[in-house]
Amino acid sequence: MRKAEKGTVYLVGAGPGDPELLTLRAASLLQSADVVYHDDLVSEQVLALAQSNALVVSVGKRCGAKRVTQGEINTRLIETARRGLSVVRLKSGDPLIFGRAAEELAALAAAGIASEVVPGISAAIAAAAAIRCSLTNRDISSSVLFTTGHHAAQQDPDLPPTRIVYMPGSALRNYAQQRISAGDPPDLPCIIVCRVSQPDQTILRTTLRDLGSATVTASPAVLLVGWALASLTLPTLVPEQPANSLVPAQEL
Amino acid sequence: MRKAEKGTVYLVGAGPGDPELLTLRAASLLQSADVVYHDDLVSEQVLALAQSNALVVSVGKRCGAKRVTQGEINTRLIETARRGLSVVRLKSGDPLIFGRAAEELAALAAAGIASEVVPGISAAIAAAAAIRCSLTNRDISSSVLFTTGHHAAQQDPDLPPTRIVYMPGSALRNYAQQRISAGDPPDLPCIIVCRVSQPDQTILRTTLRDLGSATVTASPAVLLVGWALASLTLPTLVPEQPANSLVPAQEL
Repeated sequence: MRKAEKGTVYLVGAGPGDPELLTLRAASLLQSADVVYHDDLVSEQVLALAQSNALVVSVGKRCGAKRVTQGEINTRLIETARRGLSVVRLKSGDPLIFGRAAEELAALAAAGIASEVVPGISAAIAAAAAIRCSLTNRDISSSVLFTTGHHAAQQDPDLPPTRIVYMPGSALRNYAQQRISAGDPPDLPCIIVCRVSQPDQTILRTTLRDLGSATVTASPAVLLVGWALASLTLPTLVPEQPANSLVPAQEL
Repeated sequence: MRKAEKGTVYLVGAGPGDPELLTLRAASLLQSADVVYHDDLVSEQVLALAQSNALVVSVGKRCGAKRVTQGEINTRLIETARRGLSVVRLKSGDPLIFGRAAEELAALAAAGIASEVVPGISAAIAAAAAIRCSLTNRDISSSVLFTTGHHAAQQDPDLPPTRIVYMPGSALRNYAQQRISAGDPPDLPCIIVCRVSQPDQTILRTTLRDLGSATVTASPAVLLVGWALASLTLPTLVPEQPANSLVPAQEL
């Protein structure tokens, strides 16, 4: 297992609480990092996996009682990495669903600090496993919508969801046309990730307007659509660009 | 780590491909199971973690070429467990998102075979980590919708999504009223899971009609709403039932 590297900040999903639901990667980083900054919701059992001489610090902002501001967290991550230490920023569940990871990643990038995101088991996924019930069923429900309590009561929220399409296949042009017909703007950011996490992973950035010119070159693939993706700085797809010009993951 | 038990079938999420994205629980089961039945999309690197004397069998149905039918898979799982072997049913990503897990779990339950679901890193979560981009942002997008290519092109699918509400808090009555006003039926199944995966996990089943009488007793909690949950056989909430009658996870 690869250990945490010095001067790097790892945004790591701690999962829902059971330490056995950590990924191997998360456990390895937790067991090797010099400093661990964690949210209040991260369980004691998970924190117990940190190496014995690690500095483990709560930076929780539970129930709105902002003991530590987001800006202070960003500053601590940057300063700790700059001191040459390896840092795990541990967030309950998955770091990229309903967290403030975007702000931390932006601050790290602006400061020139190397970062990596390690996904985690989100509460929804763990809850489905706990009740042993599939979240989808081809005859009953073919999609899953994640919201938070803060926004859930809104019937018709102004903010559109980030859309994730599993196995988008060859229907990209059709999908794009239908979304534009439904009112989505043609310049809405789209990202196709093929063979995610594997050595031959590819990432392609485009927009709804040009999505029909894109090709899913390898299976499995996933399509992400939404303004939340607008902050990425990947090269944009030129329509009819050959498939072999896809952006390899390591260039990200 | 707990090993795979004889006569039990484990539906295990293999994650997106990188073996370091397996959970510790999944790795432990894979390393101790007698038999592993896997989908085509499970990576070779993940399968390599199976113990050397395990029987590893592909039961893939890739691209519609049904080499093995779902009924045959169900039969194999049951018969292998009945022979007293420990069985890992390995599915790419998470087992309960866009898979046929519901049919396998129902068949196992009908046959009286013990089963457990181990969640996995779904492709959407892994893709977000790969592009280092939060899927939600309070100012841009406050929800995430998972669909499949098969259904994604439908602007207005007839089947409503399964709704997952993170941290539903005290707004349950308000949420239920708004969903019913939006046209959802009052008998729509709802499940609240508090402190999922932790020793004090609780699971409560109710309906939209009675959701307002339910209480989130411990944080963090997640609310699941949808017809996909209708097949569960948990006790139904009696309105105004005291909080201490919540159904503990082990009774599930």
